[in-house]
Amino acid sequence: MDIARGTPGFSGADLANVVNESALFAARQDQRLVSMRHFEQAKDKIMMGAERKTMVMSEKERTNTAYHEAGHCIVGHLMPEHDPTYKVSIIPRGRALGVTMFLPEEDRYSMSKRSIESQICGLFGGRIAEELTLGFEGVTTGASNDIERASKMARSMVTKWGLSEKLGPMQYEDDENDGFLGRPGGSARANMSAETSRVIDEEIKQIIDHCYGTARQILTDHREQLDAMAAALLEYETIDKSQIDDIMAGRAPKPPANWTDDAPSSGPSDGQAAPSSEETGSDNLDAAPSSA
Amino acid sequence: MDIARGTPGFSGADLANVVNESALFAARQDQRLVSMRHFEQAKDKIMMGAERKTMVMSEKERTNTAYHEAGHCIVGHLMPEHDPTYKVSIIPRGRALGVTMFLPEEDRYSMSKRSIESQICGLFGGRIAEELTLGFEGVTTGASNDIERASKMARSMVTKWGLSEKLGPMQYEDDENDGFLGRPGGSARANMSAETSRVIDEEIKQIIDHCYGTARQILTDHREQLDAMAAALLEYETIDKSQIDDIMAGRAPKPPANWTDDAPSSGPSDGQAAPSSEETGSDNLDAAPSSA
Amino acid sequence: MDIARGTPGFSGADLANVVNESALFAARQDQRLVSMRHFEQAKDKIMMGAERKTMVMSEKERTNTAYHEAGHCIVGHLMPEHDPTYKVSIIPRGRALGVTMFLPEEDRYSMSKRSIESQICGLFGGRIAEELTLGFEGVTTGASNDIERASKMARSMVTKWGLSEKLGPMQYEDDENDGFLGRPGGSARANMSAETSRVIDEEIKQIIDHCYGTARQILTDHREQLDAMAAALLEYETIDKSQIDDIMAGRAPKPPANWTDDAPSSGPSDGQAAPSSEETGSDNLDAAPSSA
Amino acid sequence: MDIARGTPGFSGADLANVVNESALFAARQDQRLVSMRHFEQAKDKIMMGAERKTMVMSEKERTNTAYHEAGHCIVGHLMPEHDPTYKVSIIPRGRALGVTMFLPEEDRYSMSKRSIESQICGLFGGRIAEELTLGFEGVTTGASNDIERASKMARSMVTKWGLSEKLGPMQYEDDENDGFLGRPGGSARANMSAETSRVIDEEIKQIIDHCYGTARQILTDHREQLDAMAAALLEYETIDKSQIDDIMAGRAPKPPANWTDDAPSSGPSDGQAAPSSEETGSDNLDAAPSSA
Amino acid sequence: MDIARGTPGFSGADLANVVNESALFAARQDQRLVSMRHFEQAKDKIMMGAERKTMVMSEKERTNTAYHEAGHCIVGHLMPEHDPTYKVSIIPRGRALGVTMFLPEEDRYSMSKRSIESQICGLFGGRIAEELTLGFEGVTTGASNDIERASKMARSMVTKWGLSEKLGPMQYEDDENDGFLGRPGGSARANMSAETSRVIDEEIKQIIDHCYGTARQILTDHREQLDAMAAALLEYETIDKSQIDDIMAGRAPKPPANWTDDAPSSGPSDGQAAPSSEETGSDNLDAAPSSA
Amino acid sequence: MDIARGTPGFSGADLANVVNESALFAARQDQRLVSMRHFEQAKDKIMMGAERKTMVMSEKERTNTAYHEAGHCIVGHLMPEHDPTYKVSIIPRGRALGVTMFLPEEDRYSMSKRSIESQICGLFGGRIAEELTLGFEGVTTGASNDIERASKMARSMVTKWGLSEKLGPMQYEDDENDGFLGRPGGSARANMSAETSRVIDEEIKQIIDHCYGTARQILTDHREQLDAMAAALLEYETIDKSQIDDIMAGRAPKPPANWTDDAPSSGPSDGQAAPSSEETGSDNLDAAPSSA
Repeated sequence: MDIARGTPGFSGADLANVVNESALFAARQDQRLVSMRHFEQAKDKIMMGAERKTMVMSEKERTNTAYHEAGHCIVGHLMPEHDPTYKVSIIPRGRALGVTMFLPEEDRYSMSKRSIESQICGLFGGRIAEELTLGFEGVTTGASNDIERASKMARSMVTKWGLSEKLGPMQYEDDENDGFLGRPGGSARANMSAETSRVIDEEIKQIIDHCYGTARQILTDHREQLDAMAAALLEYETIDKSQIDDIMAGRAPKPPANWTDDAPSSGPSDGQAAPSSEETGSDNLDAAPSSA
Repeated sequence: MDIARGTPGFSGADLANVVNESALFAARQDQRLVSMRHFEQAKDKIMMGAERKTMVMSEKERTNTAYHEAGHCIVGHLMPEHDPTYKVSIIPRGRALGVTMFLPEEDRYSMSKRSIESQICGLFGGRIAEELTLGFEGVTTGASNDIERASKMARSMVTKWGLSEKLGPMQYEDDENDGFLGRPGGSARANMSAETSRVIDEEIKQIIDHCYGTARQILTDHREQLDAMAAALLEYETIDKSQIDDIMAGRAPKPPANWTDDAPSSGPSDGQAAPSSEETGSDNLDAAPSSA
Repeated sequence: MDIARGTPGFSGADLANVVNESALFAARQDQRLVSMRHFEQAKDKIMMGAERKTMVMSEKERTNTAYHEAGHCIVGHLMPEHDPTYKVSIIPRGRALGVTMFLPEEDRYSMSKRSIESQICGLFGGRIAEELTLGFEGVTTGASNDIERASKMARSMVTKWGLSEKLGPMQYEDDENDGFLGRPGGSARANMSAETSRVIDEEIKQIIDHCYGTARQILTDHREQLDAMAAALLEYETIDKSQIDDIMAGRAPKPPANWTDDAPSSGPSDGQAAPSSEETGSDNLDAAPSSA
Repeated sequence: MDIARGTPGFSGADLANVVNESALFAARQDQRLVSMRHFEQAKDKIMMGAERKTMVMSEKERTNTAYHEAGHCIVGHLMPEHDPTYKVSIIPRGRALGVTMFLPEEDRYSMSKRSIESQICGLFGGRIAEELTLGFEGVTTGASNDIERASKMARSMVTKWGLSEKLGPMQYEDDENDGFLGRPGGSARANMSAETSRVIDEEIKQIIDHCYGTARQILTDHREQLDAMAAALLEYETIDKSQIDDIMAGRAPKPPANWTDDAPSSGPSDGQAAPSSEETGSDNLDAAPSSA
Repeated sequence: MDIARGTPGFSGADLANVVNESALFAARQDQRLVSMRHFEQAKDKIMMGAERKTMVMSEKERTNTAYHEAGHCIVGHLMPEHDPTYKVSIIPRGRALGVTMFLPEEDRYSMSKRSIESQICGLFGGRIAEELTLGFEGVTTGASNDIERASKMARSMVTKWGLSEKLGPMQYEDDENDGFLGRPGGSARANMSAETSRVIDEEIKQIIDHCYGTARQILTDHREQLDAMAAALLEYETIDKSQIDDIMAGRAPKPPANWTDDAPSSGPSDGQAAPSSEETGSDNLDAAPSSA
Repeated sequence: MDIARGTPGFSGADLANVVNESALFAARQDQRLVSMRHFEQAKDKIMMGAERKTMVMSEKERTNTAYHEAGHCIVGHLMPEHDPTYKVSIIPRGRALGVTMFLPEEDRYSMSKRSIESQICGLFGGRIAEELTLGFEGVTTGASNDIERASKMARSMVTKWGLSEKLGPMQYEDDENDGFLGRPGGSARANMSAETSRVIDEEIKQIIDHCYGTARQILTDHREQLDAMAAALLEYETIDKSQIDDIMAGRAPKPPANWTDDAPSSGPSDGQAAPSSEETGSDNLDAAPSSA
């Protein structure tokens, strides 16, 4: 069935979950048959988490989120060996203000150097979109999680996966903990010389800079698509692959199915999935009054 | 209702708390109806903590506190993208000698580079006001908490939020613990080279120095307002947004509602909120006799 | 019996296990007598782990795995004092996409410097085969485990086994934990000078580079055998010593016993062993949708 | 009442304690009324701890203690913004050989840079008095606790209170643990660059050297008062503010009330308070026989 | 009795153990009287551990073990103040492939610098014998334990026993843990400067190199005895002091008592002790099949 | 009473213990009255621990111990402000091969710089006596404990007691743990700069070298007394203050009371105290057979 084909990486339990959620969506809509749309809604909920209806963003943050997600989407779309985009959304879920969801076309058990670098470029797309529209003074902490993930991948390339030509096929950090510490109470760098530590830092920084530069060039070259996609997100809140393809080809995206002009205020049954994301959104913020 | 609009960042539980405290304030004042003034008192108590009636400051410390808080308030008032001031007070609460309370105008889920720097400037306003009035030899330990918070923000800008152009969009310290240590038992810097560590320190110091210079310039340029606001605080103990606006505009601030000349000795029912603060006040002091 | 002779390093319990599994294989095939083939199947299962039937690799990953395993096999085959190859397979087992299985000819209680270097060369055979066919941009994370093991051996040569002429017969790291940390909470390098640490890193890197260069030369010189062995693996999924010998001698390998052209789709009774491996396969991957 | 006015920093419980102890002193002296003298005795016992009657010092140590305490007293007396002296005593209490007790004139919630430096100078007064009378070879371990406290204050000035102009208003060490370690298991300096660490050490050392020099100059300039105060302490064991004022003014101090020439052998009722101190006295000593 | 005289360092419990084991040996051999031979067997078992009958070494490893043990024996035999040899054996026990057993002539409560260096030389005798016969490429991991022990002794000479003239009579590492770490969670070198750490490493390395050179010269000068002793070990499996003396004097060693030509296959009653050793044998090896 | 006067530093419990032990000594000797001699025996047992009758030293170790203890005694005897010697003995107690016992003349609560340096010199007396008689190659591990104690005192002088003129009156290491580690899991040096750490090491080393040189000069200048005292110890096993005075004055020491020529084999009642010591004797030794 289509559901299974469109869900590489889903376990049997995940698929069972999707079926149950589909039935619930159909029931809530007083329908006796589970349709393809219910499956789609269920799949999005499983993959992306539940919507957060009560979170009210300012228009400024909403616009910035739209550009941030559009930046992820466009860079990911254009980099070689990058997973294709599934959906982009600016409906907040959990702590995320927006989400760009990629889906691999088939199961994948290893990553090539090229595809890792493409992922890092895609992660930087969000921050760069902010920078292009707001200037460096205006960029936000919303990219913190992207930066963390890009840094860890770049670090692993150099210290665990043997993907730095200068440092060669050698492991420099222990495999037990991702990224930072060799073991609880110890630290990876305490086991290498100052010279090695310096070269590792240079190599990681060089990957980061190279990928950031590549992603920046892409968004500069596709500024029109960036503006168009942000506009579409602000209008429709969520867009899918066919709309993304329209925008990238310079065409106006078609509105989503069931779209009416008084949207986007409809409830959970309106067909917009609520993707979850951990990127746009900062861990260090709440709107509590600050005193100084 | 106004209460909810004036309390961005308050949870449902917080709001319920405000309602309960309002009823108590009304009851204590033998009134059958909860008025707007009771809500205001309740909100201040929830936001700022309970007053500390028994703490008797010397006139010298009271004056210094007035200048310290006025310094926070004026710098925060004038920096771009800074939350607006809500109240300033020199009534001690908890361990704080005074408080300057800022309230965001709407919920906020991320911070821009510009607004973070404005917050750091505002934090330095207190120390700088002391320095301008007492000279460097006279500045007190009362700014310790401001310094700690400013340092942590500057550090996060550089090591977690990718906001140093020199170090780029890269994570240098782990996200689990704010600021200092990567993990219990380990230390962040043990995972980087000496060179990287040096550049990080330079970048953090540069942010600190830049913000301190900016805040100093503001207070030097607004010395008249600083003196006027400190005087108002010494007279009224607590001032609110409209009085602040008067002072900033060079006008004499109106006395608070209910103000009589034999004040400020009135009890908990006199309408002055008792804001809490963690800034002016030093953790390392008590007035116990010292022996040497 | 042959079983015992072909299983150096097997404990009594292991051997008992083999006998039980053999009986089960015979029973499942409705045969009253346990034949040599059943023993072979049982031995492979004990040594290499159970097949993972449900894992579907893309054709690209399958090809890459075939080259990766062929690289291990050919380098191991040609290095002095290296254990002889037993089987090579691209049937996934556990987290491994493929396996090259070596068996010592007799029990062994110590390793010579020469044989350790040969093992390191063999470990690099997989990555090098990827590099020769896909270029450096195309190499995958599938070699992570090989790199970890090679790094640990090179490190032990220098810091524990006294096999670096420059650093001499001296222990530089504690024996309690393999490789990285002297003790929980401490770190080995904290007990030596910066100078010593630098020389250790140079010596380890030099071993890694030397072995990588040696292995690369071998595979460049035997590119024909590499292509032939990968092709044989793609066709037969598993090849054994006699087929390896054919390929290395430039002959076409004979098909395995029971081979028919509609294979390799047959079930657990078709005589192909299911070797286990920890090499080709990356710990950091799953095919779950990624969001950015 | 006088008692309360003379005890800033005393909690309600402390004051209650003073009242109880006063009654006990009166009872022990078979008096039905608690007099001012009983309150004084009680206050001294609460503030300074109980006398240690059994501790017999050699004449040499007793003289050295007298100079040590006189050094503290004179430097503290002459430094700006230093708390005024309350009493000085060479009656041992707990582990202390002597005590100089300072009492603030009013409650104090923060310290100025000037007052902190004055405290450091005062702490060094003891060691310097030893050095002036015994030479550097003769100075004792009795100043260890003074040195520890001065070092921690100088360190906090630089790393937590923003009182080094060179290092600026920035926090360099965590607030959780005073002085040394950022957190259990970690260390503060591991989170900064070697360059920053060097400057911090230079700044701390510079404060220490500056304060030591200032205190040394004071005692050199007031050598007569130093000798006179040590002599008074050797004669009367404890002196109070009015006697200190006499000595500082170059007058012979009046004997304490109740003073007779066969003193100082009288019991707990002779009006000399028994101050407690943690300064003169070394943690690392006992008079047990040493073997080598 | 002879038993007690030949067992310096044995506790009372050890001696009781020897007596019990002697009785068991006699009983197993159906003898009613415990003879001197039974005592000898019992003593060897207590001192050296139980034989490992099931371990089958290849001829190559057996030969290498013979040379390794002969190397230990000859260097130890010729170094000043070294304990005299008791027995040498290539019968595996526990994890050891062979053993050279030294026995002090009398109880000893301290060691001289000269005797420590002799011990280090003796420990290197095994590795050097391998190197002389197999070349550096052929040396095995069998010397790991010797290297660890020699390193720890050299380290203690420098950091705890004051036996480096350059570093003087000073303790550089804590006494609680032998060798590496000062305390759990800390590390010794973190308490010294980089300069001191460098000199310590140089001094340790210099001791190691000097002792290795001395031991290598001895074995080069006594190559004939080395070959003769290895041959004797391969023939008789265990040799004792008188045979060692024969070989060192250039004489053919007499066969052991009870020796017949069909030996060395006899059981536990043939008079050859089964010494235990922790040297020849590597912790990191098992003969399990390796996969790559 | 004499007992109390001769035991500064003894607590009341210690004195009670002495009295009880005296009664036991008298009872064991079938005497109804406790004499001065019984008190003396009891005091020595309390101060120095119980004799170890079963420990048999070789003549070489016994001689070396005699020189070692004589070295301690003579240096301690001649250094200024050093406690006077009470007894010297080469009867082993606990893990100690010999003991030199010093007793302060009066209670002491602090130490001068001069007296600390004298103690360090005294500690080095033992090792130097070995070096003068056996040469540097012959010195033993018996001085390990002396070295540890001297190192810790020198370190405390520099890092805690403010007794290095170069580093000044500043605390560099925490007081909680003597000597090495700031706190469990941390290390002192991690809290200072590399430069400070280097100067600390230089200062400590300079104290060590200076004291060692002073002690060496003393023993070189008093070689005759050294030989005489060692001879007396070998003859009498224990000597006391009056004999030490004789030897230092160049006179032959009188034999101890009760001395007969067939001594020193008498039992516990012969009047020789059995002092305890932790110096001569190495923690790392037992006479167990060593294998290599």
